[in-house]
Amino acid sequence: MPDKPTLEVCLTPGLLPLYPLEEKVVVVIDVLRATTTMCVAIDQGAEKVIPVESLEEAMSYKGKEGIILAGERNGRKVEGFDFGNSPFEFMNGVVKGKTLVLTTTNGTRAIKLAERAHQVVIGGFLNFSALTKWIVSEGKDTILLCSGWRDKFNLEDTIFAGAVIYHTKEYFLVDSDSAFAAEKLYVNSRRNMMHFVKQSSHYRRLAHLGVVNDVKYCLRPDLTDVVPVLKDGALIRANAKRDLQGEFFALKDGTEFK
Amino acid sequence: MPDKPTLEVCLTPGLLPLYPLEEKVVVVIDVLRATTTMCVAIDQGAEKVIPVESLEEAMSYKGKEGIILAGERNGRKVEGFDFGNSPFEFMNGVVKGKTLVLTTTNGTRAIKLAERAHQVVIGGFLNFSALTKWIVSEGKDTILLCSGWRDKFNLEDTIFAGAVIYHTKEYFLVDSDSAFAAEKLYVNSRRNMMHFVKQSSHYRRLAHLGVVNDVKYCLRPDLTDVVPVLKDGALIRANAKRDLQGEFFALKDGTEFK
Repeated sequence: MPDKPTLEVCLTPGLLPLYPLEEKVVVVIDVLRATTTMCVAIDQGAEKVIPVESLEEAMSYKGKEGIILAGERNGRKVEGFDFGNSPFEFMNGVVKGKTLVLTTTNGTRAIKLAERAHQVVIGGFLNFSALTKWIVSEGKDTILLCSGWRDKFNLEDTIFAGAVIYHTKEYFLVDSDSAFAAEKLYVNSRRNMMHFVKQSSHYRRLAHLGVVNDVKYCLRPDLTDVVPVLKDGALIRANAKRDLQGEFFALKDGTEFK
Repeated sequence: MPDKPTLEVCLTPGLLPLYPLEEKVVVVIDVLRATTTMCVAIDQGAEKVIPVESLEEAMSYKGKEGIILAGERNGRKVEGFDFGNSPFEFMNGVVKGKTLVLTTTNGTRAIKLAERAHQVVIGGFLNFSALTKWIVSEGKDTILLCSGWRDKFNLEDTIFAGAVIYHTKEYFLVDSDSAFAAEKLYVNSRRNMMHFVKQSSHYRRLAHLGVVNDVKYCLRPDLTDVVPVLKDGALIRANAKRDLQGEFFALKDGTEFK
């Protein structure tokens, strides 16, 4: 039997240079809100999502055919953009068949930093089961990259990484202190995740902006089966994987997201 | 009443550039084993401990009057040095009145990275109560710097940072996700710390080298009241602080170090 692939957690993009990315799958995690919003946009029929790092680059797409321009800085919609970074903005058909150009404080930057990896995929609670199924089926060495806040550690992305570890660890070699800590924090939080996430600095930041409903939505599990994957600089819907049975689908069981 | 000073956790030296150090106290933590060994050496009468980053710099002290040369790379004693980095090596009078020149994989490097701070002090479970008393009495903005492993997150230093937060937070403004997570991990571990630390990668590394007794010793609380403080490039015993009463001395209560 071949060795199991490794599963690691990089707690912030600031530590990503410590992780060789060649031949690795990187799961970019920005639960509040970028990777959640990306899942929503693709679920709602966006043809692709182009993550861009700078406002200038985003602005260069403005007014082009089929483009929707969206993003935030410090949680606020950018002036001149069509939309901000709330998942609710991308429902009701606005993105169907369109290309969403998105720039955010942390998540889109993390994607750009990871793009030299073998594959980059996008995770949030909304696509938890689809994502875990995808990485297990892929069977490659995998890095869970938490987007953090301006290169500092954040709580919600770490909890998500811990959830992935908790539910998939039998399929991987998991052997790092960051993975152990993330899993512990997930186990601490899983019976009352909203309460736990309320202790985070980004919750307070978003609550201050009046978007607590965004947070609640971002913690809802398995609303979609899309797994956005980076191809030629844009996120598209990944091909379906062979159907895997197993416990790792069972995030809802025993986890209380209220 | 003036604002409380801040208390933050920097999870690895790799993230230290994100933290302004001017006017800050930095507590360098390398529980296994550098900061524990430094506490032992000063407790045992070493005049000072000079932390150096490179083997070459350490070697430049070799053979000089009153110098003891010690350190490790990857947990092993360096060839040509008098001692390694086991706290047991510095008992029984060998360091009394001497200057210990020490270089280690993570801890001494973290000290050098922090030296532009207002003050750098050294923490480990051995001097937990003395250290917490010192930082509370000092009353300045404080950063708990975990030495980690080659710039990655490690468990034992994070738990120690969490213990400091748990026992001193009423005296500080504590407001970051890393502090919250560290405290949670400490609360998770405090009833059975040795069991918890056995999950860490550095425990396995040290166990492989046959020095499990070092780990047990490094988790013993309050064996000394020394607080090593950096002055002109060397660690010396800090002056005693005014006597503070309070709960933060009570690490032993409710914490099971076995």
